[in-house]
Amino acid sequence: MARVSQAHLDARRRQILDGASICFARNGFHATSMQDVLKEVDLSAGAVYRYFSGKEELIAAIVGEVLGLVREAFEEESRHIPPPTPDDLVSSVLRRVLASQEYLTVDGQSAFPRLVIQVWTETLRNAELAAVLSEGYQGVREAWGRIVIAYQQAGMMRSDVAPDHVARTMIAVVLGFLVQQSLYGPVPVEVLRDGLRALMSVSAPLSGA
Amino acid sequence: MARVSQAHLDARRRQILDGASICFARNGFHATSMQDVLKEVDLSAGAVYRYFSGKEELIAAIVGEVLGLVREAFEEESRHIPPPTPDDLVSSVLRRVLASQEYLTVDGQSAFPRLVIQVWTETLRNAELAAVLSEGYQGVREAWGRIVIAYQQAGMMRSDVAPDHVARTMIAVVLGFLVQQSLYGPVPVEVLRDGLRALMSVSAPLSGA
Repeated sequence: MARVSQAHLDARRRQILDGASICFARNGFHATSMQDVLKEVDLSAGAVYRYFSGKEELIAAIVGEVLGLVREAFEEESRHIPPPTPDDLVSSVLRRVLASQEYLTVDGQSAFPRLVIQVWTETLRNAELAAVLSEGYQGVREAWGRIVIAYQQAGMMRSDVAPDHVARTMIAVVLGFLVQQSLYGPVPVEVLRDGLRALMSVSAPLSGA
Repeated sequence: MARVSQAHLDARRRQILDGASICFARNGFHATSMQDVLKEVDLSAGAVYRYFSGKEELIAAIVGEVLGLVREAFEEESRHIPPPTPDDLVSSVLRRVLASQEYLTVDGQSAFPRLVIQVWTETLRNAELAAVLSEGYQGVREAWGRIVIAYQQAGMMRSDVAPDHVARTMIAVVLGFLVQQSLYGPVPVEVLRDGLRALMSVSAPLSGA
């Protein structure tokens, strides 16, 4: 029996996950069958089921990978002391994650933002996926919490606000930016960077106003 | 033939829209049938079809109503010159919209955030709904744009950033906050208000850092 190299196995796994991502982004999780995935990746059922038992395993693997990428990007940023200001930090993490996914397209646009909102809807009905996503959310929240504490210790941010509240707000900005991308088409990351920069400059009205 | 009062017609319409909202929030648009809606509102097919031709009309009416509420809340806030700072403005608009929807529940929690992400997913496949949502998004973007210009004119915000970039960023914060509510349960609006307040205080590191 011929031996199959690890590189070959990895490439095959990648091919299956990419095809499934495109199917889920295009039609959602429920409307996608394993047949659709087989057709998209152009492999036999035997070849695909060797790696994944079904749609549930596929979506869990896809979500796990993306969360891993986000965590990695964050860890890299948080090595700087003090960390970059939120406008630069958010745009650099987001740019990295979006760039890693941009080779996957649906209707000529990045599949990733669409995939994200499809995953959210599925999460409402799938306890296992909800657990994966919730763990990833906790991880990002804690990472952001540490960054906020570093801001506060460096005197870059008022220190009377709970770090976790800032963490949730920063995560909200990124999730909402992905929503806009998925519903209304591509938006450069610089738009969000500039918006955060402007928000960072807000003060009470001048006394003359 | 007995005459039916306008108040009765309005109440019936409300009852149908509320039942449909709960069904869509619970199971999504595709997995909900008109039979499910009839059962939820406990009315005959004849009574319901008198108001709405089907699921498409129901979802369009629901989305239209919510967008109307958001627009109204914004218009009220933007009457102040200068407008309240973003932390107060966002939390007051959000509190108003969430309060108007909190009587609709699914599994003991507000149905509204779940309904929102179900609508997004459906929007990817439904051109008519996409048009309604896109028009609403443009409206809110323009309203935010005017508020940003007012901030800049009052010297409350740096004026070298395009108002539309700030508008998109502020909308992103709110959408992402709703995502968190739908996936991870209720969060007080004050969390977002505090997070924005902290973000508004960010400055470059102190020279000693």
